Amino acid sequence: MKPIQVGLLGIGTVGSGTFHVLQRNQEEIRRRAGRGIEITMVADLDVERARSVVGDQVQVVNDARAVIANPDIDIVIELIGGYGVAKALVLEAIAAGKHVVTANKALLAVHGTEIFAAASAKGVMVAFEAAVAGGIPIIKALREGLTANAIQWIAGIINGTTNFILSEMRDKGLDFEVVLKEAQRLGYAEADPTFDIEGVDAAHKATLMSAIAFGIPVQFDKAYVEGITKLSAADIRYAEQLGYRIKLLGITKRAANGIELRVHPALVPAKRLIANVEGAMNAVMVQGDAVGTTLYYGKGAGSEPTASAVIADLVDIARLHTADAAQRVPHLAFQPDEMSDVPVLPMSQVVTSYYLRLSVSDEAGVLARVTGILAGAGISIDAVLQREADEVGGEGSTHTDLIILTHDTVEGTMDRAIAEMQALPTVLAPITRIRKEELA
Amino acid sequence: MKPIQVGLLGIGTVGSGTFHVLQRNQEEIRRRAGRGIEITMVADLDVERARSVVGDQVQVVNDARAVIANPDIDIVIELIGGYGVAKALVLEAIAAGKHVVTANKALLAVHGTEIFAAASAKGVMVAFEAAVAGGIPIIKALREGLTANAIQWIAGIINGTTNFILSEMRDKGLDFEVVLKEAQRLGYAEADPTFDIEGVDAAHKATLMSAIAFGIPVQFDKAYVEGITKLSAADIRYAEQLGYRIKLLGITKRAANGIELRVHPALVPAKRLIANVEGAMNAVMVQGDAVGTTLYYGKGAGSEPTASAVIADLVDIARLHTADAAQRVPHLAFQPDEMSDVPVLPMSQVVTSYYLRLSVSDEAGVLARVTGILAGAGISIDAVLQREADEVGGEGSTHTDLIILTHDTVEGTMDRAIAEMQALPTVLAPITRIRKEELA
Repeated sequence: MKPIQVGLLGIGTVGSGTFHVLQRNQEEIRRRAGRGIEITMVADLDVERARSVVGDQVQVVNDARAVIANPDIDIVIELIGGYGVAKALVLEAIAAGKHVVTANKALLAVHGTEIFAAASAKGVMVAFEAAVAGGIPIIKALREGLTANAIQWIAGIINGTTNFILSEMRDKGLDFEVVLKEAQRLGYAEADPTFDIEGVDAAHKATLMSAIAFGIPVQFDKAYVEGITKLSAADIRYAEQLGYRIKLLGITKRAANGIELRVHPALVPAKRLIANVEGAMNAVMVQGDAVGTTLYYGKGAGSEPTASAVIADLVDIARLHTADAAQRVPHLAFQPDEMSDVPVLPMSQVVTSYYLRLSVSDEAGVLARVTGILAGAGISIDAVLQREADEVGGEGSTHTDLIILTHDTVEGTMDRAIAEMQALPTVLAPITRIRKEELA
Repeated sequence: MKPIQVGLLGIGTVGSGTFHVLQRNQEEIRRRAGRGIEITMVADLDVERARSVVGDQVQVVNDARAVIANPDIDIVIELIGGYGVAKALVLEAIAAGKHVVTANKALLAVHGTEIFAAASAKGVMVAFEAAVAGGIPIIKALREGLTANAIQWIAGIINGTTNFILSEMRDKGLDFEVVLKEAQRLGYAEADPTFDIEGVDAAHKATLMSAIAFGIPVQFDKAYVEGITKLSAADIRYAEQLGYRIKLLGITKRAANGIELRVHPALVPAKRLIANVEGAMNAVMVQGDAVGTTLYYGKGAGSEPTASAVIADLVDIARLHTADAAQRVPHLAFQPDEMSDVPVLPMSQVVTSYYLRLSVSDEAGVLARVTGILAGAGISIDAVLQREADEVGGEGSTHTDLIILTHDTVEGTMDRAIAEMQALPTVLAPITRIRKEELA
């Protein structure tokens, strides 16, 4: 049977990796797929660079539409990124009857509903394993491996840059800004790291997992997004003393009245496997009612790890494109006419537990007033850690840190309690609040 | 579309779990699969027990062949176990044109070649996610999620009973026999635990993963199998002091001249995630050339975790049975006519590193003689731990433990060096040898 012909739009880091891995492992891939899979055409604005990657045997053009228009191309890989051109090209490729593989989490988290509808109408597949957690086959696990389960929650370290930064902050006791610079120097963080450090990238991925897990449309605009820029070395140290690590988690959860979808730093018990995922690695925990807890770990980014996911999608399409399109694995795990309209909850309705750090005057009665406010709000306390003033502010200091771990409470209630505590004259600085997830 | 009708052969622990989960999550499963999936007929020798599980709405018979003969049944689940009746029934179901789902690792590790050939000839699917690592979708990850990769090695904790025993031995400093009895009392070990503690169950699973990873036929008869019955509390303690944990690993690896396939206890660096997989949990590490290291973690046994995998297979069949049978996901990941004949290596040709414990006389020159033999064999030493005689044998003792960690060496060379050391008059007891895997 003749090889499947693939057109590649955008040959940067991931595109180069895809080309090289397909070449290096072509025999093995052909033995698995039952046909060869070849990139025969590449579009990139930088034709010279593209040519230097793929050599003379592959057609290189600067116009992506020429790839889509080529009737010999069976599958189009979109690795341009972003919402603009990429969206138009993906829709055009679908309209041209091409299957599409993309790593573009931003595009799918925002425009997935439109794109998947177009693909279903045309009977083509849009595969996106590379969009979440790089080389870890987590989309496949959620969409196919765990279909027996009512998924209860997912919690993942799904951004390598921030996990690298948090690991370094903990290891070396350094502050965020210092480590960020180091990460940029080492290539773990981009020159403009905003999307990573502010949690946006993780929220794109969490949005996709949420849709797949619960059969709801992608709703990036409903996600709560908080990054790691305000974390201090002190919080990481206190968390450690209490038996926790701080990780940036993407969380989605089935609650009684809706779906939680949120990205924020969280304290995680140090004994959990996921708490021990270090550096730029990714890991996703999935809790299902039948299977219990499962975890998937690997590299979440990089040229060849991401290429691994892109190529797995190509092989999937080679193996399965002949299946009845109405029954084939649905893009978001559930049949398009069986999606749920259960709402994504506003953050004020989310129930979780909390770590609070208050900088307070070192005087009698402070603890009583603070705990009185929490008690009045119905928030019960799990643990309190009060540092000696001298330890915190140096000898003779008159302020100290008061650390409180709470039991589960509604975020809106906690917001009000924090406002009340913040108004106390003995509370000297803005209160730090970090959510705590037991993941049990 | 009318529901897919499933016949179940054998309704014990996993069968009951499968029935209950299919009932409990039937709506969610239907929304995912695009059709209902219903167990409409059950065969079990104990008709009363079967009836008590499934109620009056499901046909219960004591003759499995009546299920296979039923033209309304689309998929047969085989949960009888063993090689005899189960093999005959699976082959008959295939001959009758039924798709088959099985959790029977022993059957497939020994007779997989015959069974998969029959299924391919008939154009039906034999799905077996539940055969390896219970609820963890590891077959799917290997067969579909990592198709881009030349797999380099797999190392897994794939037997919950032995991992529970080893965790307890370490936690409580107890010896094997004591913990085994406790495990039997708690239901983590069977009355006859031989298959688990001797490594046979893990070897069945490793055999299946080896075939899928490397495109070789299942070759259980070539697997090296060593259990945990000879491990002592002392070895676990010494390993800990050296920064390692002891785990029973199922390993398969691509070496220069063949494939390694082996199950044995191994020292693993304590900082690896897999070293921290405790109790009855399972975890599998997979190293691919593109993706790097990945890990999959979850419950490897039990009623509903295993049912989770069985039902995922049912949904897969519902979604994909219409795909071209010649291109659909192959049973062993590679197309049947593309299997490799690269040999499974005898253990004497395997290269790994070692932990050795020698009980020696506490006298001058012993260490020199032992290390001289290793040097003579070209085996280089990574670390030595020599205990004071008093610590090992009590005050005034004249013997002590000598612990040696080696670098990589060929097993055959190590065998000869051990024989030579064993012949020294100052070596007082059989030498303990445990393999060491860095998993990096």
